[in-house]
Amino acid sequence: MSNPDHPQPRDGFSSPRFAQPATFMRLPYVTSPAGLDVALYGIPFDGGCSYRSGARFGPRHVRDQSSLIRPWNSALKVHPFDRLRVADCGDVDAVPVSIEATFAAIEQTLQPAVEAGAIPVCVGGDHTVTLAVLRVLARRHGRLGLVHFDAHPDTWDRYFGLPYYHGSTFRRAMEEGLLDGTRSIQVGIRGPLYGPEDFDFHATHGFEVIRIEDVKERGVAWVVDRLGRLSGGPVYCSFDIDAVDPAYAPATGTPEAGGLTSYEALVLVRGLRSLQLIGADLVEVSPPYDGPGAITGVLAANLIFELLSVAALNR
Amino acid sequence: MSNPDHPQPRDGFSSPRFAQPATFMRLPYVTSPAGLDVALYGIPFDGGCSYRSGARFGPRHVRDQSSLIRPWNSALKVHPFDRLRVADCGDVDAVPVSIEATFAAIEQTLQPAVEAGAIPVCVGGDHTVTLAVLRVLARRHGRLGLVHFDAHPDTWDRYFGLPYYHGSTFRRAMEEGLLDGTRSIQVGIRGPLYGPEDFDFHATHGFEVIRIEDVKERGVAWVVDRLGRLSGGPVYCSFDIDAVDPAYAPATGTPEAGGLTSYEALVLVRGLRSLQLIGADLVEVSPPYDGPGAITGVLAANLIFELLSVAALNR
Amino acid sequence: MSNPDHPQPRDGFSSPRFAQPATFMRLPYVTSPAGLDVALYGIPFDGGCSYRSGARFGPRHVRDQSSLIRPWNSALKVHPFDRLRVADCGDVDAVPVSIEATFAAIEQTLQPAVEAGAIPVCVGGDHTVTLAVLRVLARRHGRLGLVHFDAHPDTWDRYFGLPYYHGSTFRRAMEEGLLDGTRSIQVGIRGPLYGPEDFDFHATHGFEVIRIEDVKERGVAWVVDRLGRLSGGPVYCSFDIDAVDPAYAPATGTPEAGGLTSYEALVLVRGLRSLQLIGADLVEVSPPYDGPGAITGVLAANLIFELLSVAALNR
Amino acid sequence: MSNPDHPQPRDGFSSPRFAQPATFMRLPYVTSPAGLDVALYGIPFDGGCSYRSGARFGPRHVRDQSSLIRPWNSALKVHPFDRLRVADCGDVDAVPVSIEATFAAIEQTLQPAVEAGAIPVCVGGDHTVTLAVLRVLARRHGRLGLVHFDAHPDTWDRYFGLPYYHGSTFRRAMEEGLLDGTRSIQVGIRGPLYGPEDFDFHATHGFEVIRIEDVKERGVAWVVDRLGRLSGGPVYCSFDIDAVDPAYAPATGTPEAGGLTSYEALVLVRGLRSLQLIGADLVEVSPPYDGPGAITGVLAANLIFELLSVAALNR
Amino acid sequence: MSNPDHPQPRDGFSSPRFAQPATFMRLPYVTSPAGLDVALYGIPFDGGCSYRSGARFGPRHVRDQSSLIRPWNSALKVHPFDRLRVADCGDVDAVPVSIEATFAAIEQTLQPAVEAGAIPVCVGGDHTVTLAVLRVLARRHGRLGLVHFDAHPDTWDRYFGLPYYHGSTFRRAMEEGLLDGTRSIQVGIRGPLYGPEDFDFHATHGFEVIRIEDVKERGVAWVVDRLGRLSGGPVYCSFDIDAVDPAYAPATGTPEAGGLTSYEALVLVRGLRSLQLIGADLVEVSPPYDGPGAITGVLAANLIFELLSVAALNR
Amino acid sequence: MSNPDHPQPRDGFSSPRFAQPATFMRLPYVTSPAGLDVALYGIPFDGGCSYRSGARFGPRHVRDQSSLIRPWNSALKVHPFDRLRVADCGDVDAVPVSIEATFAAIEQTLQPAVEAGAIPVCVGGDHTVTLAVLRVLARRHGRLGLVHFDAHPDTWDRYFGLPYYHGSTFRRAMEEGLLDGTRSIQVGIRGPLYGPEDFDFHATHGFEVIRIEDVKERGVAWVVDRLGRLSGGPVYCSFDIDAVDPAYAPATGTPEAGGLTSYEALVLVRGLRSLQLIGADLVEVSPPYDGPGAITGVLAANLIFELLSVAALNR
Repeated sequence: MSNPDHPQPRDGFSSPRFAQPATFMRLPYVTSPAGLDVALYGIPFDGGCSYRSGARFGPRHVRDQSSLIRPWNSALKVHPFDRLRVADCGDVDAVPVSIEATFAAIEQTLQPAVEAGAIPVCVGGDHTVTLAVLRVLARRHGRLGLVHFDAHPDTWDRYFGLPYYHGSTFRRAMEEGLLDGTRSIQVGIRGPLYGPEDFDFHATHGFEVIRIEDVKERGVAWVVDRLGRLSGGPVYCSFDIDAVDPAYAPATGTPEAGGLTSYEALVLVRGLRSLQLIGADLVEVSPPYDGPGAITGVLAANLIFELLSVAALNR
Repeated sequence: MSNPDHPQPRDGFSSPRFAQPATFMRLPYVTSPAGLDVALYGIPFDGGCSYRSGARFGPRHVRDQSSLIRPWNSALKVHPFDRLRVADCGDVDAVPVSIEATFAAIEQTLQPAVEAGAIPVCVGGDHTVTLAVLRVLARRHGRLGLVHFDAHPDTWDRYFGLPYYHGSTFRRAMEEGLLDGTRSIQVGIRGPLYGPEDFDFHATHGFEVIRIEDVKERGVAWVVDRLGRLSGGPVYCSFDIDAVDPAYAPATGTPEAGGLTSYEALVLVRGLRSLQLIGADLVEVSPPYDGPGAITGVLAANLIFELLSVAALNR
Repeated sequence: MSNPDHPQPRDGFSSPRFAQPATFMRLPYVTSPAGLDVALYGIPFDGGCSYRSGARFGPRHVRDQSSLIRPWNSALKVHPFDRLRVADCGDVDAVPVSIEATFAAIEQTLQPAVEAGAIPVCVGGDHTVTLAVLRVLARRHGRLGLVHFDAHPDTWDRYFGLPYYHGSTFRRAMEEGLLDGTRSIQVGIRGPLYGPEDFDFHATHGFEVIRIEDVKERGVAWVVDRLGRLSGGPVYCSFDIDAVDPAYAPATGTPEAGGLTSYEALVLVRGLRSLQLIGADLVEVSPPYDGPGAITGVLAANLIFELLSVAALNR
Repeated sequence: MSNPDHPQPRDGFSSPRFAQPATFMRLPYVTSPAGLDVALYGIPFDGGCSYRSGARFGPRHVRDQSSLIRPWNSALKVHPFDRLRVADCGDVDAVPVSIEATFAAIEQTLQPAVEAGAIPVCVGGDHTVTLAVLRVLARRHGRLGLVHFDAHPDTWDRYFGLPYYHGSTFRRAMEEGLLDGTRSIQVGIRGPLYGPEDFDFHATHGFEVIRIEDVKERGVAWVVDRLGRLSGGPVYCSFDIDAVDPAYAPATGTPEAGGLTSYEALVLVRGLRSLQLIGADLVEVSPPYDGPGAITGVLAANLIFELLSVAALNR
Repeated sequence: MSNPDHPQPRDGFSSPRFAQPATFMRLPYVTSPAGLDVALYGIPFDGGCSYRSGARFGPRHVRDQSSLIRPWNSALKVHPFDRLRVADCGDVDAVPVSIEATFAAIEQTLQPAVEAGAIPVCVGGDHTVTLAVLRVLARRHGRLGLVHFDAHPDTWDRYFGLPYYHGSTFRRAMEEGLLDGTRSIQVGIRGPLYGPEDFDFHATHGFEVIRIEDVKERGVAWVVDRLGRLSGGPVYCSFDIDAVDPAYAPATGTPEAGGLTSYEALVLVRGLRSLQLIGADLVEVSPPYDGPGAITGVLAANLIFELLSVAALNR
Repeated sequence: MSNPDHPQPRDGFSSPRFAQPATFMRLPYVTSPAGLDVALYGIPFDGGCSYRSGARFGPRHVRDQSSLIRPWNSALKVHPFDRLRVADCGDVDAVPVSIEATFAAIEQTLQPAVEAGAIPVCVGGDHTVTLAVLRVLARRHGRLGLVHFDAHPDTWDRYFGLPYYHGSTFRRAMEEGLLDGTRSIQVGIRGPLYGPEDFDFHATHGFEVIRIEDVKERGVAWVVDRLGRLSGGPVYCSFDIDAVDPAYAPATGTPEAGGLTSYEALVLVRGLRSLQLIGADLVEVSPPYDGPGAITGVLAANLIFELLSVAALNR
């Protein structure tokens, strides 16, 4: 029986799953994060992306495709909405024409939630938005550990001479003192890059890189084991959906062949359950590139449900 | 300046149009119709359709595609949200597996709104749902006048021996005493049918049929003139999106070539402005059949905005 | 009541329209044209097309999308299946890798039908296939009159030095003595071409060209009037779906902006009702380019239904 | 050389695969199951589905996409159409607006086939339809063993207070005495559910659940080994396409991330070759959600071909 | 015979239209505008758009879909490539993350072309980019006359407090002294707006507004006549594809129902042939929202061909 | 730092990846192969395909989707464009209506490149085109070794009595003396075929077949090991994209369920790095069947990048 004091998803046996205005997982939409354990936010912004735009519609798409989420995680055997108070806090009102103004909006919106003790779980938007989320969280928790699922390192420097875009997020975050490089791991890196110098940043700052070959050849259990070293301190999880193969997640800004399967991705996220998750995001879902089955949206919704489940188990 | 006492759409200059959980025209979502002049409802049901299903996702799709609607009707020179209190009342919780249970849910949900004096404007769903809306309205207003935009007469009798489906709605409504046949006009009828006997019902009950040839050859102004005879009593408007040509509205359950253009449809709805509109619906939008441009959803949203505008002018 | 001696479409009130293997208009599939007044054939071939291929799937697509066709033409007030014996005779087994072998297959398949007195109504396939159909019909009827709906004249000469492709059909037909140029009219011609010399052929042979500007400015009634001069002798109608605007018929091999609306197309075909139609085709539907609404297929099915209806009225 | 006494697919070397009205695997369409070893039926119904409708077009889609099936199973080294007489028996004329009437239609259509000794292999349609198929088969064979591939257990109870929908099929079948629970195995179960109580039914009735984690971690050979215990009695196989991951089968009613790959699915079906298969279905293909590549349809056609192949080897 | 001294499109009779890297109208790609009469540029930028992004792919899409353009305008009876030297000058290297940097790139790229006497014809990109093009042209020609086809006036002021986005272009241009308001006409305006105050700007500056109702009721010939008053001075034509109805141009950033047909659009552009065209753009094509038929791209390519044709006739 | 004497892809940090006319991997387009180590050609032809056409648009699609390719192979640790001079040599001007004329065009175009010492890497087009490429290469190198990734053996004989189509390529090549059968390996074979006799050709000529079961059960490392026996002589690699599962590569002419994953495909191509690659192709990408994410195009571009990388390592 579901916890009556917690916000609960609408019941699919008395309100059909395709009905009612779409919110994340059919949870109540609230205008204040007060009292929540986890605050779900959309951050609809694609002004930092270098290839396919469209991620501005990411939050709506994930809301739509999260309607099938039922309340019990059958793999982890947990009811996240009974353990945690979770609600849909709506979207940050991003500013389509300005990265800096969007950063300000993100910080302004998330600051009260984090101050109130809620874990923010954000749905992008392109990967640029993560920087502002990290700023808010580092203000409260200090330098953060990082689990970063992605095809790309996103540690490049300036883009057309400018500092902010979806490929420089983690360099900027490191420069701003938001991350603890030695407690940062990137998973799923692959594909054509610029040269070995792309990883000089990692060497300098102690970022660990788990390439796709490591995942495929050593297995997800090995990866989960590696992630275990991040326990004992606050950890942020940033999941760029392009970590997953385009067959499973076609709707993304910079697709890279040869990625994770959906099953691998789900198991990897479940692997965070021993960590102290203080925030998370799922970014780079670009809905115009999803097919009619909206499979990227479905997978993204499930990954968020897994993030909520590990947060519940963390408690 | 917008009326501060009325629900207003979110402002597109401070909250981007693609942001926030989608509601009809970015209006507030309310859980009670109390105090409203117009109550917008979705009725997500496609269990009565005979060809392409999918209309159960109609309300979500129209919500999504209504985000571009701005508050002033530049053709009719009216601010409907200033003249009327309008809000998104959510969806009727239709029962996917039962027409009768869905009828009950519609009646139960709409009855209080109508009793409270609100005009219900409903987004289907297939055309079956209109019958239950008419029941509620006829209870209050008596036999209703009808403006029915459609490619099909929807006055057929039993389907596989059963009484209810999207093709028998107006026969059933007439039999139940909900409509005044002599104050009923169908616009846009066309395409392959079964025989001249399809119109025996019309002859018996005084329904007027304005075929597509009439619209195209005599013009929309002539049609609007014909509709004028319905003034002086309560009128319901049922707009089946298949009245419009599939080029403009591909996403529908039973598409018929050779229909209205979007411009003709908009002008025709504006032509209702002298009538006493006591309720309306926009039905048969089947989102899986829309292309990536979602043009059926965009047109449907605009037609609803026109319905609201004529309701505002009616006041 | 439908004629019990004639093949009839399956009844939509006892067999749902989406059920059963798809045949043209849900008519019976027969393996011999014996006894038919009209023999419907698919000719699935796209080896003669110069731009977008895919028309090889045209017959299947039109079969699928013709399931909504009901038995009575409500504009022309005729039951074509009661006046005519019509059935789906399946497809010509075209040879994907050879135009010449495909011509042979067409001639071999259609010859018996035409000899038996049936009017062949063929669904392409690209426009190349029309040449072989004309060969069969001219053998029986002599030089044919022609009503040719198209954006393009299709009277070009060799293509990469070779004689047959979808752009040379009517030149070849004229050279082979299959057409009476002075009884040939092309309707809908438009768009970028090569030069005024593209119409030297027409001047030489007496082909009349009714450009799209003529249709739009003088109206379809004027065009129908022009077509009237073809009465009094056998007439073949070749309808290239690209005569219609891409908004109404996106799924075609060489789309040209600025064409007929669906309504204009339907009225124009109805305008053939005073002519002695001895054969017809509907070509250049390329299904991979249709959107999810399959509106090109829906329109094509309706145009064929109109062709059957005028054939019925011709009798 | 193919068995001349058996129905055979059209030869792709003399009739192109995209030609002719589409039947299952280009087999002959027959109007009676007399003399068949396997009777292929479509059951086009989606009135029992709780999320994405559209499965009513499943049979047509699978027919279309089965055209590439060649006659020899190169993995199992068997010619199913030489060992078995197989034909396309058309569709059950399901009643779109009534589950009960559809059940009656299914039973009425399949009863003679089963009585005549044919194995019915049915293409849905949503999973509701399986109940009626099981009724017919249990009448002949008694309580059936079950291999059920699915993401969901489909053993839930009432839906909006009503007994029949695609999520209650196996509970109802058990209650009606159609299944032997101790000889029933579900494969592929995963994803968010309602709670551990979802499996109380299984405990009570002896249903075995092989979760996706079991398949992925222990391997398909282990699963095939588990299925082996069902030999020695009649077994029905119900394959819900959502057992497969949405990347491989996007076109389904209730997609769940993290499922089988196509290769795993094919090998699992081949694993039935030691069982006494007395009937099978492939359900929940919802064509509007397939992309242009129609990969769900292609996979479904191949899974049916594997089912036919194992039926051939069973003989 | 084509002018041998001019760049010519590849010949479709010896190089298939789908072959070779796509350039605008299969014209040569050149790296310098020297010697050209018309310089075709892409401006791939969507960072100023307020709703659907994606217009960054506009130039590529229009290049792809322009492959069907043949060299002779059959309506205007002119060979534009014989009268004018036209080539594809590639794209402005827009900066995805900065409007201001993109403006600088546009000015830097176009300045030499305009100085060399070429007419720039630009393919967007969103409507923001027009401002920078106008800056370059006004530097040479002084205040410009304007023919602006659009659903929206694009004369709004600040957006989220910032000056530049696709809705403020013509206000900014007026403020910067780039336009002669009294020689500026907007055609196609319609749809929901904010209020009558949206047109205060027009009253102040003398902009003429021709609403869609004017076009539909008075006809395109009347509109062309109105445009005639702009002769006698330099005129810039900015064509926002959303002037056209979404049925004809679904792929755009802010679609508005009830717009121009493709035929009307083509005739209106032809109506510029008496004007002194010194530059033009076609903007707001957002390819991810086009269907498989790519009809927006096809229409855009034809509109550009018409612009080139009127430029040729102007000479 | 990139090699300044070599053609290099445009820099994504100063020219956005979606900008400029699309060439393979944003490399320069050259009109002569002189001086190149690798000459990239498109061969846009689908006149030999037996099911889904559309591969004529393959080269354009792969060009478009190759824009994300960065210059360093992070798996193989090589900069192919620094080691090799590579450029986009445009397309062979295939003849849509004739296989033989297309063969002649291919030979005429590639002969000079091969004579000049360039390795041709060709993007189809359907698999028919490979025969002409092999003719050119065998003229220079003698009988070639072959690595052939495919779902199908493509060693069938005549099709409708004719010798050339995409299913007979390797039989014809063997008959023409272009291949060394004992140094030929096919990888990925699977699915329904005609009978065991389909492999008589292989037995006769010494072709090795590695079925999909071998790949899945023994692993890609085992396959790479098997390929190793081809070292020591010239090897051609023909990669039919249908070797890959339709989930990863839906856009192909004859999709077969149960194929390679993208990761397996990439690793297999990397496994050629010890071989003497003298030419390669990537064929059977049929763009109309790709979804909006264009994942087949993305994978194809990556496979070509891997082919270039192994060619670089071979040097």
